[in-house]
Amino acid sequence: MIEIPARRGKAVRLSKGQRIKVINTKGQQVVDTWAFNAEDLHEFMSMEHSRVAIDRIIPGVGDALVTNRRRPILTLVEDTSGGIHDTLFAACDRWRYELLGCKEHHDNCTDNLAAGLAALGLAPPETPAPLNLFMNIPVVDGNRVEVRPPVSTPGSYVTLRAEMNSILAFSACPQDMLPVNGLAMRPTEAHFEILD
Amino acid sequence: MIEIPARRGKAVRLSKGQRIKVINTKGQQVVDTWAFNAEDLHEFMSMEHSRVAIDRIIPGVGDALVTNRRRPILTLVEDTSGGIHDTLFAACDRWRYELLGCKEHHDNCTDNLAAGLAALGLAPPETPAPLNLFMNIPVVDGNRVEVRPPVSTPGSYVTLRAEMNSILAFSACPQDMLPVNGLAMRPTEAHFEILD
Repeated sequence: MIEIPARRGKAVRLSKGQRIKVINTKGQQVVDTWAFNAEDLHEFMSMEHSRVAIDRIIPGVGDALVTNRRRPILTLVEDTSGGIHDTLFAACDRWRYELLGCKEHHDNCTDNLAAGLAALGLAPPETPAPLNLFMNIPVVDGNRVEVRPPVSTPGSYVTLRAEMNSILAFSACPQDMLPVNGLAMRPTEAHFEILD
Repeated sequence: MIEIPARRGKAVRLSKGQRIKVINTKGQQVVDTWAFNAEDLHEFMSMEHSRVAIDRIIPGVGDALVTNRRRPILTLVEDTSGGIHDTLFAACDRWRYELLGCKEHHDNCTDNLAAGLAALGLAPPETPAPLNLFMNIPVVDGNRVEVRPPVSTPGSYVTLRAEMNSILAFSACPQDMLPVNGLAMRPTEAHFEILD
């Protein structure tokens, strides 16, 4: 069991066919998730291509997320979290927190992606839109988006299967100025476990 | 009045404050639209950042689309097309048409972006998710996305105002295997006009 520390990022290699269980340890913690082709980081999981592939804005069990070359990279094989995730919102970044009124440095998912990959000696070629696991951004009346607290409970999880040799990166989202990570606005750690 | 030829791309420079009228000449023609900061192409209009900024998946009159650094780049100032546009779907590309069964080269919006910029001596640093003007991709029941014919009529248009010196790129989407550009599936030309 590997920790994604609160407000931090963590990346890991996954071989084709391996599964990874992403656990919402405390509940209500959003985990931004990226996947890159291990042989070519310019190919990566893409939310805008995945929505076309799955005909949905929220992936469900059995759905394969695809890359920017439209090839399956991760399949959602299990979900005990309530099935609410987000594919619409960008990862938070320094500019997001500046606009929210932050005067000093604020941890953010974009920097966490870079730090997670740097620990493996890698750098992301860009910051793709993430799969925001457990994030609750409903589309209301077919157009309006709302930021709501996650519905996931402590210990609930999602299992993803790698469809190619991949680099996965996670960020335990440090958003503490909006109820992205629950009404208490207290970011917590999460965990993952690799299953062969 | 400048033509975006059927199935082709066209790029243009726009100074801060200038407006551009994008005209659906024949009606029902989707126009994939990108905007880059003219001083730094790595800053560009981002759908995933714009949805956060405008709290909507479809921009309306008065909404400012923002860049991947969360700065306004284009404001939608006028819309006679019925107000239906798409921010969810990736630009079509060679892989999309291969998956649809195409055995030979098929024109596509991703190549059209590159060709449009190349005509200005530029290259896109990546292929951002486009603002798909006039494209009709409703979110049904809060999750499912459907491909429907556009509701725009011949001669209807959208006017966008540049909030920084920008490079705009357009592609008259060559999709002729799905009703993206109307039930007849016959891609047509579109036009734009720069207004000072």
